[in-house]
Amino acid sequence: MKINRIEGGICAPEGFLAAGFAAGIKKSNKKDLALIYAKELCSAAAVFTTNRFKAAPVLVSMQNIKKGVAQAIIINSGNANACTGKQGLKDAWDMASKTAASLSISKDHVLVASTGIIGRPLPAKKILGGIWAVSRMIKRAGCGDAAEAILTTDTRKKEIALEVNLDKKNSFKIAGIAKGSGMICPDMASAERSRSATMIAVITTDADIDSKMLNTALKEASAESFNMITVDNDMSTNDTVFCLASKITAKIKKGKTYEIFYEALKQVCVYLAKEIVKDGEGATKIFEVLVKGAKTFEDAKKIAKAVAGSSLFKCAVFGSDPNWGRIAAAAGCAGVEFDPDKTDVFIEKMRMVKRGSPVAFDAAKAKNLMEQKEMRFTIDLNSGTICASAFGCDMTKGYIDINARYHT
Amino acid sequence: MKINRIEGGICAPEGFLAAGFAAGIKKSNKKDLALIYAKELCSAAAVFTTNRFKAAPVLVSMQNIKKGVAQAIIINSGNANACTGKQGLKDAWDMASKTAASLSISKDHVLVASTGIIGRPLPAKKILGGIWAVSRMIKRAGCGDAAEAILTTDTRKKEIALEVNLDKKNSFKIAGIAKGSGMICPDMASAERSRSATMIAVITTDADIDSKMLNTALKEASAESFNMITVDNDMSTNDTVFCLASKITAKIKKGKTYEIFYEALKQVCVYLAKEIVKDGEGATKIFEVLVKGAKTFEDAKKIAKAVAGSSLFKCAVFGSDPNWGRIAAAAGCAGVEFDPDKTDVFIEKMRMVKRGSPVAFDAAKAKNLMEQKEMRFTIDLNSGTICASAFGCDMTKGYIDINARYHT
Repeated sequence: MKINRIEGGICAPEGFLAAGFAAGIKKSNKKDLALIYAKELCSAAAVFTTNRFKAAPVLVSMQNIKKGVAQAIIINSGNANACTGKQGLKDAWDMASKTAASLSISKDHVLVASTGIIGRPLPAKKILGGIWAVSRMIKRAGCGDAAEAILTTDTRKKEIALEVNLDKKNSFKIAGIAKGSGMICPDMASAERSRSATMIAVITTDADIDSKMLNTALKEASAESFNMITVDNDMSTNDTVFCLASKITAKIKKGKTYEIFYEALKQVCVYLAKEIVKDGEGATKIFEVLVKGAKTFEDAKKIAKAVAGSSLFKCAVFGSDPNWGRIAAAAGCAGVEFDPDKTDVFIEKMRMVKRGSPVAFDAAKAKNLMEQKEMRFTIDLNSGTICASAFGCDMTKGYIDINARYHT
Repeated sequence: MKINRIEGGICAPEGFLAAGFAAGIKKSNKKDLALIYAKELCSAAAVFTTNRFKAAPVLVSMQNIKKGVAQAIIINSGNANACTGKQGLKDAWDMASKTAASLSISKDHVLVASTGIIGRPLPAKKILGGIWAVSRMIKRAGCGDAAEAILTTDTRKKEIALEVNLDKKNSFKIAGIAKGSGMICPDMASAERSRSATMIAVITTDADIDSKMLNTALKEASAESFNMITVDNDMSTNDTVFCLASKITAKIKKGKTYEIFYEALKQVCVYLAKEIVKDGEGATKIFEVLVKGAKTFEDAKKIAKAVAGSSLFKCAVFGSDPNWGRIAAAAGCAGVEFDPDKTDVFIEKMRMVKRGSPVAFDAAKAKNLMEQKEMRFTIDLNSGTICASAFGCDMTKGYIDINARYHT
């Protein structure tokens, strides 16, 4: 087994075309409409936000994903079509229908996502006109335009493509694009048991995998990647990850090929998730919170996300301040039972706390470690064998700037 | 029944003396040691943080409060004595013993609290020397000094005193002091079922109430006041509210006198809680999130606190931006089951959302409403009859400034 990074974005896997277009939803005249199209019907899977307020496109896609197949994904940025009532739901269905008509496919085979401001009516005319235009532009080289068109406050495209050699004969490709970068604290579940932040990702692969297996893989890979990041602890109404498999290359079956497929999918998801955090609103640094020695994954995850999401701790990271007390305080209110007197805390490999008690440490060196662009904090509960990592970014004045003037 | 604001702080109720002293814990040489002393043994009650990492003084006070009596409270600011291991626990007990010895009372009758940086050894020598000094300074006029000595990043004292006339003959006084102002999202419980943020409050009364009744009243009043505020969603290791009753004036019994006592106690708690939010780190505005039409208090509380604690929403309040979509997004991920399509949202009395759908509103007028120093947002779930209010403050660059450079 060999995994290589390749060029070509989400059109690197066989069978996919894409395009991005400026339909005029964004005032900036930047691209705001992305279309991803598969030449043949694909196996399809998705995970969605678990927010009680689900955006209209989420409701449409939850409906259309049920059969496990899809052929096109239409995504607009600049307007979330969330909290928009009956009109919003009609608009989302119209997006699916218009995409279907433009591509001569069934509207049941179109998935829809939107991202942007909540509670504003979708500029339907612009979008429906734009869908026709973007459907004329799809090509293999359109992957970058699509990656661009889904962005909101993101400062850069997020894309990755991998080629996976199963053996000398068989290989497949898998690729993804994503957008962040505020209201990020996803907790997505697959359509059956739905609950989630605004991040959107599209993953394509040419592997031959059935939709049930794809769904299991996507759910698990999301739990270990997208659901482990936090920019601001705010879960969105629109979080969505789509995965399409064109079934052109290697057959994925239970056992070894599935394990390799899962590994590659997880690599794509983890890469995109970390890219979202790195490009978090106002972020200057990214950090990992690794919780070790937990009794369950759920315990480890809760503590890791609580620490990564603590505003106070994120400010300390911004200030390169080795204030580990904020790690302890945030861990202690994660709603997990653990023994503080068994707990160790490290900044990188430097121990700050041993069995609940502070250890003398070189403050200048600790500050130095925290001045890096990426760093890891470890909390060892010394009570089990399970670990989980969450990824977060620092909280800066840039975040306040962006979010105090987003709407008006 | 008549309730009047009076002067005199926590020494307004009969039987109490207080003092504040600069023991040198804070580098600024500001006052950092407060002593509250009752001439006779009091009925005593307390609620504490529910953080898994409980500071040493919390553990000492949880022990000493068990018998429901106390005669003195010693509080230092500038160091939280949290995550300080066995030495920290010894230091906290030494604070109790030294206070007891200085006042010739039992160490079992001393309550202890600390606030400040986590994980640093307590400067025990300075504190123990300071305790002797401060014990020589107690007087009725010392209430303001005590209120000052418990502050950390607070910009002002928080104190209130009330006189309550039960009837023509009987009256009592009740008063309180408190400190905030970061790591504020309390969830305190009484000692029996303990779980909580850094806020510290001391309430004194001269009413004649037994400790069991006092405990019930304090627990309930805290649930409706201190536990409903959030500055930054970070729950502290040290949150503590103490209440001492000197039993010199009106007898409080089950029934009407208890109801009046509870009402006065709640007034003190709500006043202090709101003062903490107003003085939140970097805050320029305070807002109330009122959740109505809920099925249970727990549901209403969860949604109110989720919205009041949302970083994105707090930034919108800072920017006077009527971005109600962030209210919906935060409410939707509070972990409460409710029907988005029944939900109304208001800024003051201006409706933004009706039954889940946006309503056209005057954006300039909405912005105007949000430019006030105090404002209320209402979320009506239209699914029941229960309501709850949470209080929060805006998130500003001042918050980032304070918390990026707190430690080093």
